[in-house]
Amino acid sequence: MFSRSDSAARDAADPLAPLRSLFALERVDEAAVIYLDGNSLGVVPRATAVRVRTVVEDEWGVGLIRSWNSTAGLSRARSSESRGWIDLSQRIAAKIARLIGAGAGEVVVADSTSINLYKVLSAAMAISTRKRIVSERTNFPTDLYIAETLARDHGFELVLVDHSELPEHLNDQLAILMLTHVNYRTGRMHDMADVTRAAHDAGAIVIWDLAHSAGAMPIRLVTGDTNEDADFAVGCGYKYLNGGPGAPAFAWAHPRHIAWMDRTGWRQPLSGWLGHAAPFDFTPNYRPAAGMARFVCGTPPVLSLAALECGVDTVLAAEARGGLAAIRQKSVALTDLFIELVESRCAGLGLELVTPRDAGARGSQVSFAHAGGAYAIVQALIARGVIGDFRAPDILRFGFTPLYTRFVDVWDAVDRLHEVLKDGEWGDPRFSVRAAVT
Amino acid sequence: MFSRSDSAARDAADPLAPLRSLFALERVDEAAVIYLDGNSLGVVPRATAVRVRTVVEDEWGVGLIRSWNSTAGLSRARSSESRGWIDLSQRIAAKIARLIGAGAGEVVVADSTSINLYKVLSAAMAISTRKRIVSERTNFPTDLYIAETLARDHGFELVLVDHSELPEHLNDQLAILMLTHVNYRTGRMHDMADVTRAAHDAGAIVIWDLAHSAGAMPIRLVTGDTNEDADFAVGCGYKYLNGGPGAPAFAWAHPRHIAWMDRTGWRQPLSGWLGHAAPFDFTPNYRPAAGMARFVCGTPPVLSLAALECGVDTVLAAEARGGLAAIRQKSVALTDLFIELVESRCAGLGLELVTPRDAGARGSQVSFAHAGGAYAIVQALIARGVIGDFRAPDILRFGFTPLYTRFVDVWDAVDRLHEVLKDGEWGDPRFSVRAAVT
Repeated sequence: MFSRSDSAARDAADPLAPLRSLFALERVDEAAVIYLDGNSLGVVPRATAVRVRTVVEDEWGVGLIRSWNSTAGLSRARSSESRGWIDLSQRIAAKIARLIGAGAGEVVVADSTSINLYKVLSAAMAISTRKRIVSERTNFPTDLYIAETLARDHGFELVLVDHSELPEHLNDQLAILMLTHVNYRTGRMHDMADVTRAAHDAGAIVIWDLAHSAGAMPIRLVTGDTNEDADFAVGCGYKYLNGGPGAPAFAWAHPRHIAWMDRTGWRQPLSGWLGHAAPFDFTPNYRPAAGMARFVCGTPPVLSLAALECGVDTVLAAEARGGLAAIRQKSVALTDLFIELVESRCAGLGLELVTPRDAGARGSQVSFAHAGGAYAIVQALIARGVIGDFRAPDILRFGFTPLYTRFVDVWDAVDRLHEVLKDGEWGDPRFSVRAAVT
Repeated sequence: MFSRSDSAARDAADPLAPLRSLFALERVDEAAVIYLDGNSLGVVPRATAVRVRTVVEDEWGVGLIRSWNSTAGLSRARSSESRGWIDLSQRIAAKIARLIGAGAGEVVVADSTSINLYKVLSAAMAISTRKRIVSERTNFPTDLYIAETLARDHGFELVLVDHSELPEHLNDQLAILMLTHVNYRTGRMHDMADVTRAAHDAGAIVIWDLAHSAGAMPIRLVTGDTNEDADFAVGCGYKYLNGGPGAPAFAWAHPRHIAWMDRTGWRQPLSGWLGHAAPFDFTPNYRPAAGMARFVCGTPPVLSLAALECGVDTVLAAEARGGLAAIRQKSVALTDLFIELVESRCAGLGLELVTPRDAGARGSQVSFAHAGGAYAIVQALIARGVIGDFRAPDILRFGFTPLYTRFVDVWDAVDRLHEVLKDGEWGDPRFSVRAAVT
């Protein structure tokens, strides 16, 4: 039987283990909190507090408006900040590009995932000659809501299907296949290259939402095989990228579509001044910036943007230790172990694995269903210091972030889960009171 | 002749003077910097550094995902923060409502000014039965760019006119009059009630951009006279509201239009999950939240949002000292004095007043034109520690923020302007090198 000391031994042998010190987890550890919700909000990097303080007190406080151009002499943290806020989005975009197998000029950092989806979906709709968008019914709702309104306003049809029905919808009616790489509820992962190839074979465009995969595994938006290259993607800054609550999001387009935009002069609908070809000329007519820069709209929230860079840097710090491949390898080991321990130690206590057992079809999370008890069990776990997520109607969701989640955390979390389940502790009425956000 | 000690005397008698201590200006003052650019980026409130540090280190660092619901026990600064990040936008919106003569439920805080304009302009276009949008050619470009694309995509005509041509365009073809209350270049201010009444008499809808007026003067979007009530408004968080670089923006709609949205089920185009009637039900179909809440799209950038609240609080702090009326009174005194001193001390040195001489037609800024020298003069002033703005092609722009700009600052700024101009110091080639952002 696998023991806690076996977990500790795996931590001792883990090449990524030293990276945990990049995060300010002392007070979390002191409180004996086990955080399995980095797929909702990543933890705070140690560098972030210093960086944000520098932005507020020095760059804003002393540099004032001048810091848009240059923060030279104002930054305590790093020389690379000296180029000024105006370059910040672009610099972070180039870093994110390295995490998703894309070129630096193909990514923009701006706004929210929802708003970036609005932009790239608008582009895909402009490119396509067909009128049907297909997505999964279980896709994260904001993607569906954005698509629903765009489809309605532009004469497209949005068809929502189950995962198993996807193949039959890859046909000559399909304009755009819009999927999230890793499902937020179940943790099921699409084979991005396979699905993209099949959609392309049907003559469709593919948009990937990387919210639950960017930073958690190697992603190759550009594969080296044209037919397997994705078309558009969006992703989130505050999950595996550790960018902080509501961090700005990113958007990506394939170079062939960027070339199309440049050739046709296509403008995205949110044609704000910072996406203009010459924003500081203050001309009355809009002229889109070349390339992906047109996907920028208004002035970015600099404090949140600076925090995002610190988060992205934590993932890049893994590059010297095997990078995203090593992160993925540990992610599989963590999730495998979690499944194995839950199924052995909590057998017969009402949990049913929802996430694919096949690690190759799984993101960096594990979800179990529990009929009737899921919400209360998550609350009872939180009371015992294990932070996971409830997802309606019956899902307990646990995220594993290899940069800071340890094998002993997995062991301890399952231990506490067993405590919560074995004598029905979760049945206490106090665990059934609903909070606004779960 | 008005002297520096006369300025000092006016500061001593200024009821708003004590509010300057709300801002962290020690290092700015030590460097003898005179900051006349609060209309581009307000200075940092003293409370912001503590608040943002609390958000990063405690609420995010220790509270983690739980802080969306509650930050109780995590906030060093104020008890009102204990309700959690999910309420933050709404709480700030209610505060901004007090500054613009609106009801708390009529304002949302989200995204950027450009994106909020996209939302409210979409609403106005949905309401109107006519197809012409009129704006000023000299309006801030992002407003024009957003309108240009929306008009193009929805079969509207965007007509750009000069200020003097506005009256003739208030006719039965006009769907929407879209204006910025105070012009970013010239500082010219519209009479909001008069213009709104005239547009309403023509059967049109009026959208006001309050970027250069919110926080600088009393604004009454709801006047008590239905025909003078505005229809929609947007505004900026980082100018006179002191919210920090790229702070989230706000949007407002009149209760009659909110009632129309609720009655018709109208959805804004950026129909993201946080504007859903029940976001945490995670249903696949979009149903807009009641009222203005539908104007929210994705997850807000919490760090930047928290800083915005500290900024808004600095303006609210004036309520005990005469509020926005006192702010406006001092603003007029500061700008009057600046004009008077420049015109007397710098007479014959090539400056020409661009801002209206009539204080009633002027915002809280003063612009002068200088043929050929404007850019270099602004740079030479910056080298002497007076920070203003250049606006193409020939404008020197100076902003006055009564919460922290002193009468001695006005005197010293003009003194240095005179130094820069009198012997042609600005002609030094080093002042002609263009930076990315001016």
